[in-house]
Amino acid sequence: MYEKNETVRIESFSDGVFAIAITLLVIEIKVPSHSEVATIGLFKALLNLWPSYLAFLTSFATILVFWVHHHWIFVMVNKYDHSLFYLNGLLLLFVTFIPFPTTLLSDYLMYNGSKIAAIFYSGMFVAISLSFDALWRHVSTRLISENAISEKKEEAIEITKHYRFGPPLYLGAFVVSFVSEPLSIAMCLLLALFFALRGWPFKEVLYNPQQSRRIP
Amino acid sequence: MYEKNETVRIESFSDGVFAIAITLLVIEIKVPSHSEVATIGLFKALLNLWPSYLAFLTSFATILVFWVHHHWIFVMVNKYDHSLFYLNGLLLLFVTFIPFPTTLLSDYLMYNGSKIAAIFYSGMFVAISLSFDALWRHVSTRLISENAISEKKEEAIEITKHYRFGPPLYLGAFVVSFVSEPLSIAMCLLLALFFALRGWPFKEVLYNPQQSRRIP
Amino acid sequence: MYEKNETVRIESFSDGVFAIAITLLVIEIKVPSHSEVATIGLFKALLNLWPSYLAFLTSFATILVFWVHHHWIFVMVNKYDHSLFYLNGLLLLFVTFIPFPTTLLSDYLMYNGSKIAAIFYSGMFVAISLSFDALWRHVSTRLISENAISEKKEEAIEITKHYRFGPPLYLGAFVVSFVSEPLSIAMCLLLALFFALRGWPFKEVLYNPQQSRRIP
Amino acid sequence: MYEKNETVRIESFSDGVFAIAITLLVIEIKVPSHSEVATIGLFKALLNLWPSYLAFLTSFATILVFWVHHHWIFVMVNKYDHSLFYLNGLLLLFVTFIPFPTTLLSDYLMYNGSKIAAIFYSGMFVAISLSFDALWRHVSTRLISENAISEKKEEAIEITKHYRFGPPLYLGAFVVSFVSEPLSIAMCLLLALFFALRGWPFKEVLYNPQQSRRIP
Repeated sequence: MYEKNETVRIESFSDGVFAIAITLLVIEIKVPSHSEVATIGLFKALLNLWPSYLAFLTSFATILVFWVHHHWIFVMVNKYDHSLFYLNGLLLLFVTFIPFPTTLLSDYLMYNGSKIAAIFYSGMFVAISLSFDALWRHVSTRLISENAISEKKEEAIEITKHYRFGPPLYLGAFVVSFVSEPLSIAMCLLLALFFALRGWPFKEVLYNPQQSRRIP
Repeated sequence: MYEKNETVRIESFSDGVFAIAITLLVIEIKVPSHSEVATIGLFKALLNLWPSYLAFLTSFATILVFWVHHHWIFVMVNKYDHSLFYLNGLLLLFVTFIPFPTTLLSDYLMYNGSKIAAIFYSGMFVAISLSFDALWRHVSTRLISENAISEKKEEAIEITKHYRFGPPLYLGAFVVSFVSEPLSIAMCLLLALFFALRGWPFKEVLYNPQQSRRIP
Repeated sequence: MYEKNETVRIESFSDGVFAIAITLLVIEIKVPSHSEVATIGLFKALLNLWPSYLAFLTSFATILVFWVHHHWIFVMVNKYDHSLFYLNGLLLLFVTFIPFPTTLLSDYLMYNGSKIAAIFYSGMFVAISLSFDALWRHVSTRLISENAISEKKEEAIEITKHYRFGPPLYLGAFVVSFVSEPLSIAMCLLLALFFALRGWPFKEVLYNPQQSRRIP
Repeated sequence: MYEKNETVRIESFSDGVFAIAITLLVIEIKVPSHSEVATIGLFKALLNLWPSYLAFLTSFATILVFWVHHHWIFVMVNKYDHSLFYLNGLLLLFVTFIPFPTTLLSDYLMYNGSKIAAIFYSGMFVAISLSFDALWRHVSTRLISENAISEKKEEAIEITKHYRFGPPLYLGAFVVSFVSEPLSIAMCLLLALFFALRGWPFKEVLYNPQQSRRIP
C-alpha cells in the first residue's frame, strides 16, 4: 500500500508553491515613506496605494482560483508519468513569477508605462491559463487509466467543456490591455470571480468522508 | 478510501499560508542603519525598534491563535461544499495581508500618522474576526451533516457561544484606536492571549491516538 | 481512525515554520552594490561578506538541528493538551525571529556595535534552548500517557539527560559574547555541530517501515 | 502502524525548503526604478532585465529538477539513519543558498565582475550536485535494507549509472565559466533540461494506485 503516493507529493509541493506565491504578494506593498507622509499625511498616502491593493487582490484571487482548480485536476489523476512533473513545473514557473508583474502593475499603473505594465500583467495570466490547459489536456487524455470507471471519462469531457473559456477569456483581457489598462485589470479580477462562482460542473459537492471524526 | 481527502488539502494549504504569513513578519523588522548607529549606538538603536517588536509579537500571537482555532473548526467539518473554499479563501486573504499593517504600525507608531496606523491595524483584525465568524457559521450550519452524532451538534452550539465575543471585542479595539493607539494595540495583544488561555470549551483535551507510536 | 491527527497537524505547521525560517535566511545576504564593486572589485566585495556567510551558516545549522530534535520530541508525544499548542508556539516565536539577529550580526560584526550584535544573537539561542527545554519538560511529564509502555518512560529519562547540556551551553556562549564576539559565534556553530554529531541516545536508529515501497 | 513515518517527515520538510527556495527567486527580480523608466521607458527597462529572467529561469529549472530527483531518491529509502538527516541537510543548505548567487548573476552579468558572478553561480551547482551525489551514495549503499527485493538493488545500480554524469557535467560548466560566462550559464540551463528530459531509467512510469479515487 502506498501511504503517500507520488501524485500526493506533487500536489504537496505544488500546494507549497501556491501558498508561498500567494503569501509573498503582500511584501511588495510598500509602506509609505516618512517623507511622503510628511507632505500629504498617512491617510492620503495609504489611499494613494490603491493600485497596490487592486493588484494584490487580483493576483490573490487568481492564484487562489487556480489553486482550487489545480486541486480538482489532481483528484482526477490516477496514473502519472514523467510529463506530469514537468507540465506541472511549467505551470508553477508562471505561478511563482506572478509577484513580479503584480509589483510592476502596482508601481506603474498611475505612471508612464502603465500600458506596458498591464500588458505584461494580463499576458502573464494568458501564459498561466495556457499552461493550465496543457496540464489538463495531458491529464485528461493520458492519465485517466483506460479501465477507469466510465463515469469518470464523462466527467473529464464535462471538465474540458468547463475549461474551454479560460484561455480565450484571458486572451481577451490581454488584448483589451492594449486599449484600456483599467478594463483589462477589471477583466482579470472578474475572471477570477467568475471561475470561483461558476464552481464545479457537478451537482454533488457535498461529501462526507469521516463522520466519526470529531473534536477529541 | 480517501487517503488525503479534500478538507485535508484545504487544511494543508491554509496551514502553509498561516505558517508563511507568521514567518514573513520578521523580515519587516529592519536592522538599524550604520548612520543611525554611528550617532546613538547599536544598543539604543535596537531599543528604538520597540514598536517593531511589539507589532511583531502582537501579529505573531494573533496569527497563531487564529491558526489554532482554524484548526479546531476543520476538525468539525465532515462535509464540504464550494463555499468552504472561498470563505476560507477570504480568511486567508486577510491573514496574508497582516504583514502590511504590521509594518505600517512599526513604522508610524512613534510618528505623525500613528492614529491612522493603529486604526488600520485593529481594523484588519476586525476583518479577520468577521471572516472567521462567517467561516464558522457556514461550517456549523451547513457542513456538519444531518446524521452527525447529536453530541457534535451540541458542541457546535457551544463553540458558537465561545466565539460570540470575538468580533465585538476586536470591534472594541478598533473603536479604541480612534482614541488611544497604545490601548488599542494592548487590547489586540490581550485578545490573542485571552483566546489562547481561555482555550477550548471542552474538558477532555487529552487525546491518545497512537499509543503504539514510539521512537523507532 | 484518525488519518491526520492533531499532533501531526502541529508538526506540519511547525515544519512549515522551520522550513520557511531556514530558507528566509538567505534573503538577508545582500549582493554587493555596484559602487562598492567599482572600488574594490566583485571578488573582494564577496570576500568582505564573510560575516554574512558565517551568520547564515550558524543560523542554518542551528535551525536544522532544532528541527531534527523538535521532530524527535513529537515522536514521543502520544497525548496532547492545550499547553502543547502554546509552548510549541513560543518556540516557533523565537525560531521565526532568528533572521533578525542573524542580519544584525552580519551587518555589525565588523563595525562598532559588534558586541551588542553578538550578545543579541547568542541571547536569542538561549531563549530558543530554554523554550525548547520547557516544551520537552511538558511533553515528558504530561504528554506521555500513564499506560505507555515503560520502555518509553525510560527513553524519556534518557532524553532528559541528553538535553541537560543545551541551555547551560548556550548560556555559556551568551556569557562569552560579552568578552569575545568571534568565540561566542564559534561556540554557537560548534554547539549545532555537537548536537548534530552527538545524535540520538539510542542505538537502533535503523528503521524499516515500508519494505514493500518501491519505485513505481 | 506508522501513518506518517520518519522519512516522510524529512521529505515534507525538504519539499517545503525546495518549494520556498523556488518561490523566493522571484523577489530578487527588481522592478525598474521610476528614474530609469523616465529615461528609457518601461519597455526597454523590462528588456534590460533579461539577465534576471535568465538567472530566474535557470535557477528555477535546476531547483525543480533537483526536487524531482530528490523525490525519487526518497522513494528508494526504506531505512533511515542519523546521517540521512544531515546529508540531506547539507543538500538543503546549498539549495536555500541558491537565491544569493542567482541575484549576483542577475546584477553583474552585464557589468564588471560578470566572470566572478558566473564562477560563483556555476560553482554553487557543483556543490549541489556533489552533495546530491553524497546523499544518493549513502542511501544506495546503506539505506536499502539487505532483505529488500533484489529488483530494488538492480534499480539502485541503474540509478547510480544514471547519476554518474551529474557532478562532472556541472564541473564542466564551472570550468567553462572561467572562459565564457554566457556559455557556462547556457550549460547550467541545458543540464537542467537534459536531466528533465532524460527522465528516469525505467520504462514503467505509469502508475495506478487509486483507481477508485474520483471526484467526490
